[in-house]
Amino acid sequence: MHLLDRFKQGEMRLTRVEAFSDGVFAIVVTLLVLELKVPALKDPASVSELAHQLIELLPKFLSWLISFIIVCKFWLNHHHVLALARHANYAMVWLNSIFLLGQSFIPFPTALMGEYHGNPLAVSFFGGVFAVNTLLFIALQAYIVRNLIKPELAASQDPHGLRKAMIGPAAYLIGAAAAWFSVYAAFVIYALTPLFYVTPPKWRGAGAQALRRNPK
Amino acid sequence: MHLLDRFKQGEMRLTRVEAFSDGVFAIVVTLLVLELKVPALKDPASVSELAHQLIELLPKFLSWLISFIIVCKFWLNHHHVLALARHANYAMVWLNSIFLLGQSFIPFPTALMGEYHGNPLAVSFFGGVFAVNTLLFIALQAYIVRNLIKPELAASQDPHGLRKAMIGPAAYLIGAAAAWFSVYAAFVIYALTPLFYVTPPKWRGAGAQALRRNPK
Amino acid sequence: MHLLDRFKQGEMRLTRVEAFSDGVFAIVVTLLVLELKVPALKDPASVSELAHQLIELLPKFLSWLISFIIVCKFWLNHHHVLALARHANYAMVWLNSIFLLGQSFIPFPTALMGEYHGNPLAVSFFGGVFAVNTLLFIALQAYIVRNLIKPELAASQDPHGLRKAMIGPAAYLIGAAAAWFSVYAAFVIYALTPLFYVTPPKWRGAGAQALRRNPK
Amino acid sequence: MHLLDRFKQGEMRLTRVEAFSDGVFAIVVTLLVLELKVPALKDPASVSELAHQLIELLPKFLSWLISFIIVCKFWLNHHHVLALARHANYAMVWLNSIFLLGQSFIPFPTALMGEYHGNPLAVSFFGGVFAVNTLLFIALQAYIVRNLIKPELAASQDPHGLRKAMIGPAAYLIGAAAAWFSVYAAFVIYALTPLFYVTPPKWRGAGAQALRRNPK
Repeated sequence: MHLLDRFKQGEMRLTRVEAFSDGVFAIVVTLLVLELKVPALKDPASVSELAHQLIELLPKFLSWLISFIIVCKFWLNHHHVLALARHANYAMVWLNSIFLLGQSFIPFPTALMGEYHGNPLAVSFFGGVFAVNTLLFIALQAYIVRNLIKPELAASQDPHGLRKAMIGPAAYLIGAAAAWFSVYAAFVIYALTPLFYVTPPKWRGAGAQALRRNPK
Repeated sequence: MHLLDRFKQGEMRLTRVEAFSDGVFAIVVTLLVLELKVPALKDPASVSELAHQLIELLPKFLSWLISFIIVCKFWLNHHHVLALARHANYAMVWLNSIFLLGQSFIPFPTALMGEYHGNPLAVSFFGGVFAVNTLLFIALQAYIVRNLIKPELAASQDPHGLRKAMIGPAAYLIGAAAAWFSVYAAFVIYALTPLFYVTPPKWRGAGAQALRRNPK
Repeated sequence: MHLLDRFKQGEMRLTRVEAFSDGVFAIVVTLLVLELKVPALKDPASVSELAHQLIELLPKFLSWLISFIIVCKFWLNHHHVLALARHANYAMVWLNSIFLLGQSFIPFPTALMGEYHGNPLAVSFFGGVFAVNTLLFIALQAYIVRNLIKPELAASQDPHGLRKAMIGPAAYLIGAAAAWFSVYAAFVIYALTPLFYVTPPKWRGAGAQALRRNPK
Repeated sequence: MHLLDRFKQGEMRLTRVEAFSDGVFAIVVTLLVLELKVPALKDPASVSELAHQLIELLPKFLSWLISFIIVCKFWLNHHHVLALARHANYAMVWLNSIFLLGQSFIPFPTALMGEYHGNPLAVSFFGGVFAVNTLLFIALQAYIVRNLIKPELAASQDPHGLRKAMIGPAAYLIGAAAAWFSVYAAFVIYALTPLFYVTPPKWRGAGAQALRRNPK
């Protein structure tokens, strides 16, 4: 038996894969706020000093906001892709774990960009991490669609779905490149990219109909 | 197809929406305690110095207590509102994600008010954040009641429910305004507001009966 | 309708109460380790300095270990008590939330005792917090047994169960008192107390049989 | 009734044991990233200084990566072993809790090795902790296979499974010993050890077939 074939073994229920993933997603989005540290004030009762310090925190608020929305988008897409699978196997669980590794890393580039928002490397690094995360998600999605898809959903898949999904990593890489010319341009690109994914893709509409006929 | 119509697509099971939300709620309430830092003592064995430092922590304890109770109240209401929905769609998931964004932010104003309890801006900011959180919850609730409600529960909804729900944000805003005159008054208002919601509203009693006849 | 009667309303499924509680338990036990900070070494390559620093951390390891075991014991008992209930209502959810408030507080006295293990107040405070936590659990248990118990389990309840449960808070309070004479004695009492609860009480054996006949 | 027999009582559903464990696993893997602290820069806008600092973080990235993969492997094996059990009892829940105690400890040796990657004691300690964790897992697995296994899965168990499982602790201990000669050798051994477990063992293939015939 080939090594690669062994990965296709180990049929498992999806329930715990979902539970573990939901836990990681929930913790990642909640840990992001820990980077918003209470500022140190010389005069604890000074309203103007606190107001000034809160305004200084704005780049961190913005980093936090962008990362939160992007992780929610990943969670939503993850939800959809796992609903396509008829069961889990070892290869899929490892692809999922490596994807979650990327997700759990997100607080670091978020904090880095929040702290050094004027540093092109920090802003560019952020885009690079999200490009890699999107590629890891696409790998998981491609594996499920090719190997584990429920027969009734296979017909409704967009054959160009994978190529369209590449818009995500491309946009983050454009942002990462733009950071070297203008960190503001990069911020705008990072903030706009998840908006392309907030509505379900058309081919999913058809998939949803099949799901409706076969509710779990 | 209109953009807004696409949001109504993407029918999903509620299970993972609940799991993700429960994860965020659980982490938020538990992270709150991280702001209660072990005080630094000059003499590690001194009982009086430690007693003094613990008393100094009282405003932080109080902030923590108020936020914990309010988040539990949000969890309880969230539980009820999601039980009204027959399924999830993209619009509802995004309203839920934005609501959770607000929830996950709570440790920051809690820490800020605990640290600078004599600073009107810190105390006022706390009220403002909770007013926004309550509005985000009302938006989620209104969307579910109007678009996703189970047919058997629709009749039992209070037509004035939305207007009554506005008492919450109004109370937090009154607290936020009161902070500029007396931070003690604001603390009292913040502590009393969630008490209006600890018992189920009357119209929910009827809803609960319908739920009882149709247990999941 | 009396205010207290309104608390008995709001019949709810137990699933989300369990999910929220399990989240809080899991986070509390895992956050405990954050108090074990990596020591600062003058010479990063020095084995003897690191060995010395790790030995210095022993009281923190011990605090962590005791709290971990006690929280696991609470989780186990919580699991049992919720399995007795036929459904949740508002009063039970609030008693549960206040119990979880106590659980989420545990990292603070654990860190305090770990840091100031020679300070009687720190060690005594730890026992006091656990006594209160046990009382909060007993309140939840008593409410469920009196108001929400499944009819088939009611007969198998030990009528003296409540009195026996008081051994827990009493033991923690004895430890808290002992801390003022010897912190070592208090440590021993805290470590031994949960051992009384690691096996199921006899009346639960009968309850388990009923559960077996009526698996969920 | 013997004390040991009482541990065999307390039949419980596996659902909450899995939920609690999944919570702990998810939090452990996500907390690991908190050790990756944003570096302090003298010149916030300096690309070269930030690049230098990120390269300095490489040992911490590597520690984080190794621990993440190992915890995912534990999660995967835990998933498999719990699927073998027909129900939970007190002994199994305590073995599981002690195993989770070990898992929740992992952020500490990970941070220690990341910080003092040139210190043989720090690197060796890491291997020792993972050897103990693997032994705790083997104890849980052995208990379930001997006492709680589903009858239809019993025949498909490898009688030499326990002996083969000892390869894990042995490999970690070899790494821990190697650290005293070369920390690089230890890093390599730690990184390679989980790779032995990424595919399902052969006897599990047969177990999976039985699971397929009896899906939950």
